[in-house]
Amino acid sequence: MAAQGDNRPIGVFDSGIGGLTVARSIATSLPHESIYYVGDTKRCPYGVRSESEVRSFVLQAGRWLAAHDIKIMIIACNTATAAGLKIAQQMLPVPVIGVIAPGARAAINSTRTRKVGVLATPLTVRTGAYTRAIRDLDAGVSVYGCPAPSFVEIVENELATGAHLQERWLQDGDVFDTPENREEVARTLGPILEPGIGIDTVVLGCTHFPLLVNPIRHALGEGVRVVSSAEETTRELTDILVRREQLAEDDVVPEHRFATTSDNIAEFAAAGSFIFGQPLKSIEHISLDELDRY
Amino acid sequence: MAAQGDNRPIGVFDSGIGGLTVARSIATSLPHESIYYVGDTKRCPYGVRSESEVRSFVLQAGRWLAAHDIKIMIIACNTATAAGLKIAQQMLPVPVIGVIAPGARAAINSTRTRKVGVLATPLTVRTGAYTRAIRDLDAGVSVYGCPAPSFVEIVENELATGAHLQERWLQDGDVFDTPENREEVARTLGPILEPGIGIDTVVLGCTHFPLLVNPIRHALGEGVRVVSSAEETTRELTDILVRREQLAEDDVVPEHRFATTSDNIAEFAAAGSFIFGQPLKSIEHISLDELDRY
Repeated sequence: MAAQGDNRPIGVFDSGIGGLTVARSIATSLPHESIYYVGDTKRCPYGVRSESEVRSFVLQAGRWLAAHDIKIMIIACNTATAAGLKIAQQMLPVPVIGVIAPGARAAINSTRTRKVGVLATPLTVRTGAYTRAIRDLDAGVSVYGCPAPSFVEIVENELATGAHLQERWLQDGDVFDTPENREEVARTLGPILEPGIGIDTVVLGCTHFPLLVNPIRHALGEGVRVVSSAEETTRELTDILVRREQLAEDDVVPEHRFATTSDNIAEFAAAGSFIFGQPLKSIEHISLDELDRY
Repeated sequence: MAAQGDNRPIGVFDSGIGGLTVARSIATSLPHESIYYVGDTKRCPYGVRSESEVRSFVLQAGRWLAAHDIKIMIIACNTATAAGLKIAQQMLPVPVIGVIAPGARAAINSTRTRKVGVLATPLTVRTGAYTRAIRDLDAGVSVYGCPAPSFVEIVENELATGAHLQERWLQDGDVFDTPENREEVARTLGPILEPGIGIDTVVLGCTHFPLLVNPIRHALGEGVRVVSSAEETTRELTDILVRREQLAEDDVVPEHRFATTSDNIAEFAAAGSFIFGQPLKSIEHISLDELDRY
């Protein structure tokens, strides 16, 4: 490994396609970095799995990525971070970061009222992972969990329309900013926006939610900041690569590769290209049998 | 409070004068920010106090600073951060940050070998505060504590020479980079530099130690990065003020004020000016009776 300039890819792991919001943020902010993305779509969603199952999936994907010579692994999934980050850091031969700590720190650093909302799936809210991460760093910040049971489904249903989406994203329109979605998002956020609570910062604690950022901003109004764990994880990654002198060289044209356990590569490609913001040129299938060997 | 531009001072608290390395770093990086510094020199060192005593000292100073209209409080002392950060965050009406989390995070983000040394007073090493902070964020990083029993005394003895120092700092020489200090620093660092350990990053876990940075760098050699908690705390503070839109306005000439419980203002002024890198123009005495009222 050279002292300066490390052109090995960044490994990004998610239970499915939501983590592509993190991959997109990385590709945008660090245009010379190559990404190797693994989406365990076949076993998605992880929310219904046991903690020990999720842990073993994270380790399998991590070992697979490490065997493909990545320089760092990002667990781009809140459920997988909550369950598997610590063991992945202990067991894997590569450094590993998750999406929770960067989002938590950014929320603390953003709030003036010292009241933060965490918008996440009901499971993530229930595990209290963000609350712990925030209060470990600042015991003076109050955390208000806001479970959003319908958001992942809203996103996934829209993404399932496939070809329709491809056209829409070429026009750069926001397919998610519809009156129906605005209404549903406003209804979901209602409880934490009650007068008297005083939240001024909301963390998007699910990698799907940046796709709903416009309806979310609309519901929150101008006085409330939105912290995206995807963007904050990219900032943390950038700080790490700069400090370790491991940024890719300036003249590198990055190569992004995508691997999925899904049997339907076309579906992964359509939804994935939409989220990633550019066509997924190189997609491969990984069988669960192959992952089981790791 | 205006939406943009908050010219209130930053409160900086230390048990004595060591925290002036943090204040200096803030004054250098954020040239429009005013600082209100409290050094509890009369009750220094905190290392020999009980945890509950230190906690109550932190709260007293914090309430005093909050009553003087600061916008944020920095606990610029490792002992006081370890013992009092959490309760200060919970009890004080202003936001509070310490020096340990920023240094821990920077060390994690800097290490490639995933082995970090923590150079601190024997007490700070013994409390394991850095080890916990580092391993909470990255369970894959090994932490090697390096107690330095003589460093604070080396610094304080040199600072006690007073007038001599004033001349020396005007010449911008490093009064601490002497052959004797190089030898003592190398002896102290010896155990964590044994071949086979593989540390590539060392955190300065005491606010006095940035004054010894040249002998420390000399002993560590080129392959080992030095992380200064003072500088990293300033980076964290900057991120906070930017995100909260609480930076002072660009046209503000900052006013730095210093308060000490020491009965010897002249001594505080001499040593303090040296560490702060410019004359302490406004120094006031706070009696312990006054602090006791907070």
